[in-house]
Amino acid sequence: MMAVEYGDDLVLIDAGGKFPEEWERGIDLIIPDIRYVKNRLSKLRGIAITHGHEDHIGALPYVIPQLEGIGKIPVYGSPLAMGFAENKLREARLDEKVELHPMESRERVRLGDLELEFINVTHTIPASFAIAVHTPAGTIINTGDFKFDPTPVMGEPTDEARLRELGDRGVLALFSDTTRVETPGHTPSERVVMETLDRVIRDATGQTLIATFASNISRVFMVLKAAEKYGKKVAVAGRSMEQNVRTALQLGYLDPPEGVLLPLNDLLQLPPQQRVLVVTGSQGEAAAALARIAADEHQKIQIGAGDVVLISATPVPGNEETVSETIDNLFRRGANVVFSSTEGRVHVSGHAARDELQKMLELVRPVHAVPIHGEYRHMALYRNLARSIGIPEDRILMTEIGSIVDFEDGRGAVRGRAPSGSVFVDRLGDFEPGKVRLRTRDDLISEGLVTITIIVDAEDGKLIAGPEFVTKGLSMEALAGPIRQAEQELKRWLERRPEGEPEVGYLVSQAKGITARSLFRKTKQRPMILPMVMEL
Amino acid sequence: MMAVEYGDDLVLIDAGGKFPEEWERGIDLIIPDIRYVKNRLSKLRGIAITHGHEDHIGALPYVIPQLEGIGKIPVYGSPLAMGFAENKLREARLDEKVELHPMESRERVRLGDLELEFINVTHTIPASFAIAVHTPAGTIINTGDFKFDPTPVMGEPTDEARLRELGDRGVLALFSDTTRVETPGHTPSERVVMETLDRVIRDATGQTLIATFASNISRVFMVLKAAEKYGKKVAVAGRSMEQNVRTALQLGYLDPPEGVLLPLNDLLQLPPQQRVLVVTGSQGEAAAALARIAADEHQKIQIGAGDVVLISATPVPGNEETVSETIDNLFRRGANVVFSSTEGRVHVSGHAARDELQKMLELVRPVHAVPIHGEYRHMALYRNLARSIGIPEDRILMTEIGSIVDFEDGRGAVRGRAPSGSVFVDRLGDFEPGKVRLRTRDDLISEGLVTITIIVDAEDGKLIAGPEFVTKGLSMEALAGPIRQAEQELKRWLERRPEGEPEVGYLVSQAKGITARSLFRKTKQRPMILPMVMEL
Repeated sequence: MMAVEYGDDLVLIDAGGKFPEEWERGIDLIIPDIRYVKNRLSKLRGIAITHGHEDHIGALPYVIPQLEGIGKIPVYGSPLAMGFAENKLREARLDEKVELHPMESRERVRLGDLELEFINVTHTIPASFAIAVHTPAGTIINTGDFKFDPTPVMGEPTDEARLRELGDRGVLALFSDTTRVETPGHTPSERVVMETLDRVIRDATGQTLIATFASNISRVFMVLKAAEKYGKKVAVAGRSMEQNVRTALQLGYLDPPEGVLLPLNDLLQLPPQQRVLVVTGSQGEAAAALARIAADEHQKIQIGAGDVVLISATPVPGNEETVSETIDNLFRRGANVVFSSTEGRVHVSGHAARDELQKMLELVRPVHAVPIHGEYRHMALYRNLARSIGIPEDRILMTEIGSIVDFEDGRGAVRGRAPSGSVFVDRLGDFEPGKVRLRTRDDLISEGLVTITIIVDAEDGKLIAGPEFVTKGLSMEALAGPIRQAEQELKRWLERRPEGEPEVGYLVSQAKGITARSLFRKTKQRPMILPMVMEL
Repeated sequence: MMAVEYGDDLVLIDAGGKFPEEWERGIDLIIPDIRYVKNRLSKLRGIAITHGHEDHIGALPYVIPQLEGIGKIPVYGSPLAMGFAENKLREARLDEKVELHPMESRERVRLGDLELEFINVTHTIPASFAIAVHTPAGTIINTGDFKFDPTPVMGEPTDEARLRELGDRGVLALFSDTTRVETPGHTPSERVVMETLDRVIRDATGQTLIATFASNISRVFMVLKAAEKYGKKVAVAGRSMEQNVRTALQLGYLDPPEGVLLPLNDLLQLPPQQRVLVVTGSQGEAAAALARIAADEHQKIQIGAGDVVLISATPVPGNEETVSETIDNLFRRGANVVFSSTEGRVHVSGHAARDELQKMLELVRPVHAVPIHGEYRHMALYRNLARSIGIPEDRILMTEIGSIVDFEDGRGAVRGRAPSGSVFVDRLGDFEPGKVRLRTRDDLISEGLVTITIIVDAEDGKLIAGPEFVTKGLSMEALAGPIRQAEQELKRWLERRPEGEPEVGYLVSQAKGITARSLFRKTKQRPMILPMVMEL
């Protein structure tokens, strides 16, 4: 998330959510702290979205309720991004709190002294934009997530002509994606994945399962093409993916011939060889379809010998082990698994490699270069790159979360830091449907925090020690009894589980749910619950 | 570790240690459970070592003391592996408990009804062997870790002629490495790393740091060559690496011209540009030289602008995040870092890719193929490979840890399971120098287990919650007071720490040390201590 502010006008760019790391498994989502904006609420003119991925729109349902008091919030972005945002907001019953404005490439909108312009870029989702903000102090560009894909599967290539034009007129600062600066050369076109999808779907003698991100509409598009070619049928499984595909159909991004895309239940009536299933869970997420299928715990989909699973994604750093567990489980069920280590072309990145980052700098020729959206090493390598093409050191601005970049008389500098940090989203689950609680670190202490330590045998899943609860900031009432009762309830559940290799993600979500429900029943309180499951 | 048994004779192949995962951070090392061998101690004729890497010799100091009562244990392996083993055993004052027998390629030794034969293979360490065990029931071959490197940096290529000869005579079973079966084609020669090392050392205008595994003598060899070429000098830092280099010098594996390899203190007198430092810590290990240098906590070595760090290794799965933290820290100090993501040729694997695994099968033409040394998916993919070259399904034996493979009348089958599993090594630290305790899962419960939960702020390192102790199996005496005192002592230490980004590994080791010392002082007891540090 980035705020652009000039005089009395302020615009937010993107509102993304981050998934918690392994150690934070009781947390559902991490979103940015927006105190800076709340303190200037009367200036807020709208939110501009670069594209419809979770890490760019996922925080909307939690950010919008914090912006009460200035009427409906205008939100701008591509039709697809707006469609995905609408799904999220409708589900959270927040669709009445916003005005969604679908924007086309090169379209502009004036918001006070700021004028937003949307410029087409290629990424792994169609209808992705870089956003230029024209201000009286100059133009700044946020690249969003981009690459230069000359042959995108859907939509148009990156709008180099417009970027060059903006460069000709002068750009004060380029805020650039840096995540793939480590990789020399160019990122391959999304089209190379097509060959792999085509071959796997053609050769499958049993069911074909394709796992990818729920928002990856381009992959669904390619799967539909290949299935059509080989007379097979497609269904999607996983609520978020079903919803995204429905939106893409409504907006015309997907337009398969009649009868190729079927409801899941209809597809499962067909002989295995005709079935192609697109499922969520490519990161090994315990709650998603793929992990449940791998553990034979999916309500509808079973997998076995003769089936093939294509994992059309690479593990996000930190997810390697859960992905590896899921793959092992799929092999144990007899399926053949095609994934990034066995086959290079199951996935290509949506981010620009080094030469493309340089190309963007050369098109835009900004006065200032500001690396964003990466680890420190990515920003450091981007600085080296910017320097190597002649941008002076003092015009490359190194920021961190919360940094305020101030431009005055055409010169930018990092000046101070806004209140910022992580806010933890805690969904309250089935006992308070639809409710969420947002907590900062300080809230965790004042509203209560329960950590649960559980140690299980890595082989048979038997309970070795725990569950033991460590609490912080709980009410006297809860400590007087309910907390011990919750511990006992969880202990009973853990001891009664059937033997078998433990699924850590499942244990964590159950431990959280059982404890939360038990505490809530007796105290109406809802501390943050962080289970830590250790396998010995 | 593998045991080969025929009649009254039993030989062990390898005795490796495994480093604990993030969740097991209070554990120093994990070694195999050798109850099966202890129950047949009078049959044990010796231990054969394929090569001198930690995951093949690291358990020796803990296994040897468990084999008391049959005199000195004969250990066989290459001169380098025996040198490394001797270092370990001498340090543990166990060198008198073994007889080390350096073996040459193609050399044989008869041990009762079993005859061992050592066959040269290439890997990332010179003097690596596959081991053939000739038994009255037939010959079995354990490949060890291998690849077919046609141009090894040190030593000879894999001894294809001898492997083919053995194949001609008939091999009952090939027990094969499988870890890299996912990768198609061939693993590149170790020699390709030379170009990168050469260029980095040539171009460095400040200090050059090269981080690699302590046992990677081939890399040290190449660094010495390049430094010599460009008139620079080399020193190694990190106790294990110093020891290994000393051994390699004594045995003649390394033989640099006078004055190229210097003691660390001498090197640090030279101008930065002349210094090349080979350091441990390529996996981001908190206690190793590189992480300490990155955190500016190394006693002798500082790093800064103009220096270059080459990380000549790829992160082992599970270590990605600690490696990434170390790299970020090095960039923060102003150094340039060359690592696997920026530069493909900083490291090559020592393991055979798919075509090489196939080549090994084709040379040996075994009656049975037994995948070992990999995750389930690796073994499943190896099975596919073996099947694809015509080995019938029922002659591909899928094992897990503890599996007993029984050969009778030329036919093998997996029959039952030996007592097996993990044994945790707990080094007792500075209050009981040199002492270690070995514990199985059951011992953890009966001898006592303390988990410590510590939650710190991810940004400034401040204590958010904890330390809270959860104990299992502790004596009444300890519970009566000492455990709370230890908790208070640790709490005080945590609260007094200066602010700064937390180094999880350092917090874990300090939490363990402070708690263990405090408990031991008062109770003389030493439960297993498992600190879990969570960053919010």
